[in-house]
Amino acid sequence: MKVALVTGASGFIGRHTVAPLLERGFEVHAVGRGNQPDVQWHAADLLNASDRRDLIAAVRPTHLLHLAWYVEHGKFWTALENLDWIHASADLFVQFAKHGGRRWVGAGTCAEYDWSGGGLLNEDAPLQPATLYGASKHALRILLQTLAHDFDISFAWGRVFLLYGPGEAPGRLVPSVIRSLLAGEPARCTDGLQQRDFFHVEDVAAAFAHLLDSEYSGAVNISSGAPVRVRAVVERIGEMTGRPDLVHLGALPSRAGEPDLLAGDASSLCASGFRARYTLDGGLRQTIEWWKRHNI
Amino acid sequence: MKVALVTGASGFIGRHTVAPLLERGFEVHAVGRGNQPDVQWHAADLLNASDRRDLIAAVRPTHLLHLAWYVEHGKFWTALENLDWIHASADLFVQFAKHGGRRWVGAGTCAEYDWSGGGLLNEDAPLQPATLYGASKHALRILLQTLAHDFDISFAWGRVFLLYGPGEAPGRLVPSVIRSLLAGEPARCTDGLQQRDFFHVEDVAAAFAHLLDSEYSGAVNISSGAPVRVRAVVERIGEMTGRPDLVHLGALPSRAGEPDLLAGDASSLCASGFRARYTLDGGLRQTIEWWKRHNI
Repeated sequence: MKVALVTGASGFIGRHTVAPLLERGFEVHAVGRGNQPDVQWHAADLLNASDRRDLIAAVRPTHLLHLAWYVEHGKFWTALENLDWIHASADLFVQFAKHGGRRWVGAGTCAEYDWSGGGLLNEDAPLQPATLYGASKHALRILLQTLAHDFDISFAWGRVFLLYGPGEAPGRLVPSVIRSLLAGEPARCTDGLQQRDFFHVEDVAAAFAHLLDSEYSGAVNISSGAPVRVRAVVERIGEMTGRPDLVHLGALPSRAGEPDLLAGDASSLCASGFRARYTLDGGLRQTIEWWKRHNI
Repeated sequence: MKVALVTGASGFIGRHTVAPLLERGFEVHAVGRGNQPDVQWHAADLLNASDRRDLIAAVRPTHLLHLAWYVEHGKFWTALENLDWIHASADLFVQFAKHGGRRWVGAGTCAEYDWSGGGLLNEDAPLQPATLYGASKHALRILLQTLAHDFDISFAWGRVFLLYGPGEAPGRLVPSVIRSLLAGEPARCTDGLQQRDFFHVEDVAAAFAHLLDSEYSGAVNISSGAPVRVRAVVERIGEMTGRPDLVHLGALPSRAGEPDLLAGDASSLCASGFRARYTLDGGLRQTIEWWKRHNI
C-alpha cells in the first residue's frame, strides 16, 4: 500500500496534486484545508514540533510530497519565516524516516540558481541564490539530501520555475493582466522582452505526483523547457480576451538586472517520463475562463 | 567601543580566543563556563530562543564570533543536533542584526568541501559535504551570507581544517598517541601515508580573533597550508617522548576512501595579514608537555 502525505495540499500547486495521486493508486492524506473526496485531511500546524510528530505517527506515510512553505506574495523572498520552514521541514523529514517513510519529494525553486548570467538552466547550473527564499530552499535541499543518504530514503527535489493557472495570487503577472482586461481597464506592463518559462500549475502538480511515484533521485527542474517572451504571453491574453488595445507594453520600466533569458531546461523531467498536458495557449485560455467565473 | 560576544567560549578553540580579543581592544563577553579575568561570562542556552534574545539584548555586541555547536566526539558527524544548531545560529544572527550588530564571524569546517578528489583545497573548491555535520555548516553559511546581505552585516566564515593542541578530546589522533607513549603503551596507527593539515588550536583561535577584527568577507580556510604525512606527526611524537619504539605504524587498516592529500590552502588567510605563531614541532612539544601535566 502506497500512503502519500501531501503538505501544503490546499496551496496553489498542492490542490492539484490530489487527483493525479489518487489516479496513481495512492491512499492520499493531505495537510491543509480542502474538501476533495477520497482524501483524508489533517489540520496540523507544521511549524509545531508535536503536531509534526503526531501527524507522521498517525498517518505513517510511505511517500511524502512536501509543498508547504511560507508563500505570502511580495513578502516570501526576504521573510525570516523561511528559516522556520527549513527547521520544520528537516524535522518533518526525520520524523518521516523514523516512522518507516520510503520516498520524499520536496519543492525547490528556480531561485536556487545563479540568475546573474541567465540562460536555459539545467540542474547542474551554479547554485547561487540571491534571496533568503532561494537560499533557504537551497540549504534545505543540501540537508535533506544528506539525511536521505543517512536514513536510506529515496529523495527527489523539484525546482519550480514560473507557473500560472487558475487560482494564482491576483497580484502576479498573468492574473493581473487577465483581470484588468476582463474589467476593461488598461494593463500597464514592462516591454516584456525577457524570455521566461511558463508552466501550467496542473502540469506542475502532475509532475510532482509523477516524481513521487518514481525513483528519480536528486534535483529536477519542473518547467516547460520552452521559454517565451513575456510580451508574447501578455499579447496572447489581449487577443484571447478581445482587448489587445488595453495592453500597454513598455508603460512600466523594466526591473534592473533581470536577465534576458531565465528558464529551466526540462530534459531531466522529460527523460523521467513526464509529459505535460497543457499548451501555453490552452492553459491561458482555461485560466481566462476561470477568471471570468471567479472575478470579483 | 568594540564589544565582542564569543559563543562556545569554553570549547577547544573558544577558550583561546579571549586573550587575542582582549589584546585587540575588545570588551569581551563569552557564552560558556570559563574563569578568565577581564571577561564577562554568560550562561545562556543558545538552543533556547528566549535565552538568545535576552543574551543579545543584554550584551548588544558589535562583533560576534560564533563557535558554539554540537561537537560530541564520534557523534557530531551524523547527529541530528546539527539541525537544531542551524536554526539556533540563524536566529542568533537575526537577533544580533536587529540589535545593532556590525560584524559576524562563524566557524565552518573543511567537511563542507568535496573530499572525494582530495587536494590542497582553496575556498573556491567544490562544496559537497558527505556528512550531516558538513552539510549543516554548509547550509548555515549559505543562510548567513544571505542574511548578512539583507541586514548589511559584515560577514566572514572560517573553515577549520585539522587542529591539535592542549585540551583536545583524548580520543583524537594526537592526544591518543601522546597519552599512549607517555604511559609506556604501544600506539597502534594506520600506515599514516595520507597528508593532512595540522594547525595549532591557539593559532586557529588567534586567526578567528584576527578575522573578527578585520573586514575580510566570505569564506576563508583556517589552516596551516602546509600538509604533512600523518606518519611524520606520529613519528615526531615518538621522538619527542623518547619512545619511538612504541609507535606501530601500519598496525591498523587505513580507512577506505580517504584521499591521500586533504588540506586547506591558506593563501587567503595569509593575504588577510594573519601569521601563525606555532611551528608543528613547537606545537607538538608544547602539547606533550601539557599532557605530562594533565594526564590522568
